[in-house]
Amino acid sequence: MDIPAHFVETDADEINALIDAFPLAVLVAQTAAGMVANHIPLLRHGDGHLVGHIALANDLHQNLQSGDEVLVIFTGENAYISPNWYPTKPLHHKHVPTWNYQAVHIHGTIVFHYDEKSKAAIVGRLTTRHEQLLSKNTGEAAWKMADAPKEYMQAMLKNIVAFDISITKILAKSKLSQNRDAVDFDNVITKLEASGAPYLAKTMRRWPKP
Amino acid sequence: MDIPAHFVETDADEINALIDAFPLAVLVAQTAAGMVANHIPLLRHGDGHLVGHIALANDLHQNLQSGDEVLVIFTGENAYISPNWYPTKPLHHKHVPTWNYQAVHIHGTIVFHYDEKSKAAIVGRLTTRHEQLLSKNTGEAAWKMADAPKEYMQAMLKNIVAFDISITKILAKSKLSQNRDAVDFDNVITKLEASGAPYLAKTMRRWPKP
Repeated sequence: MDIPAHFVETDADEINALIDAFPLAVLVAQTAAGMVANHIPLLRHGDGHLVGHIALANDLHQNLQSGDEVLVIFTGENAYISPNWYPTKPLHHKHVPTWNYQAVHIHGTIVFHYDEKSKAAIVGRLTTRHEQLLSKNTGEAAWKMADAPKEYMQAMLKNIVAFDISITKILAKSKLSQNRDAVDFDNVITKLEASGAPYLAKTMRRWPKP
Repeated sequence: MDIPAHFVETDADEINALIDAFPLAVLVAQTAAGMVANHIPLLRHGDGHLVGHIALANDLHQNLQSGDEVLVIFTGENAYISPNWYPTKPLHHKHVPTWNYQAVHIHGTIVFHYDEKSKAAIVGRLTTRHEQLLSKNTGEAAWKMADAPKEYMQAMLKNIVAFDISITKILAKSKLSQNRDAVDFDNVITKLEASGAPYLAKTMRRWPKP
């Protein structure tokens, strides 16, 4: 990923917050069949790991070996930024359109898990995480794996393969108009709030002003 | 991308609508430096092409040769789907969590353009497209490249490299609960409308009922 110096994101809290808020990652791998991508909800786990699972029918676990390199991409909200949004525009007209977004690219090595215990553990962690988030937002009771019949859950677990990605490198970018004049930066926030990019606007609101 | 038969998307209109609505693509390439991804707004052009541009400082155009293969990933809205959202759940409890989303993966070959005419044409098309969309939503006048001083625009164009991707293969997936009972499908729409996934809900509303 090309990251000009003023857009490099190195804050671990910011990176983790983005992964947590936009968990549906794109997992990309170079296989004998060429580049292959899959959209998979991932979860941070322990120190430097991501976990998730794929369908047993997904040949990714056959086309990759445990230890192979993968690239995982998380993307936050994004929005087109019009030059018309900059109050300094009428002063000199030296503005061009751009795009604001945050992205985290994680390089790592993948290990697949086929045993029921590992699969149940990873599925359980994902379920707990997303049911808790939902429950917090709606006030409704969380679904638990134990709500389903045991034989049904065992059959479901047979149909998946779990995996653990050991992170080797993180590249992150926060492209948030922080290279603009303060007055332009502020108005971009106002425009993003009005145009349906609340997460992006909120992130910019707590950013150090340019 | 692993696509079970009931989630395969083959409708060109649906695929084009997703590309148009979520234009910030992830462009992935296998280079001598490993797998590299960049987030770039792309535009459909002519029959079977995508166009866009990168910064001249982005070494992607040095690490790839014209004619090299790239993978372009477009992702629509996505949402966690709780088993609690299925009205049939209390009947048998045989449900597990899943994720709904639409994705389009495009394989193609890239050609870079360094001449000012090609760059101005591609930048112009992207600008027109996004300014028109914005103008339609806000009622405000669209920004035009001619609004900026000519020397400034020429200097800006010097700092970019344009490219054209010739599409060789499209894989698309619409994972929209269409493999569920009609009553469950309907309630997922209601829940998505309430939880901030309007595009996904709208797409499901015009889907053939299961």
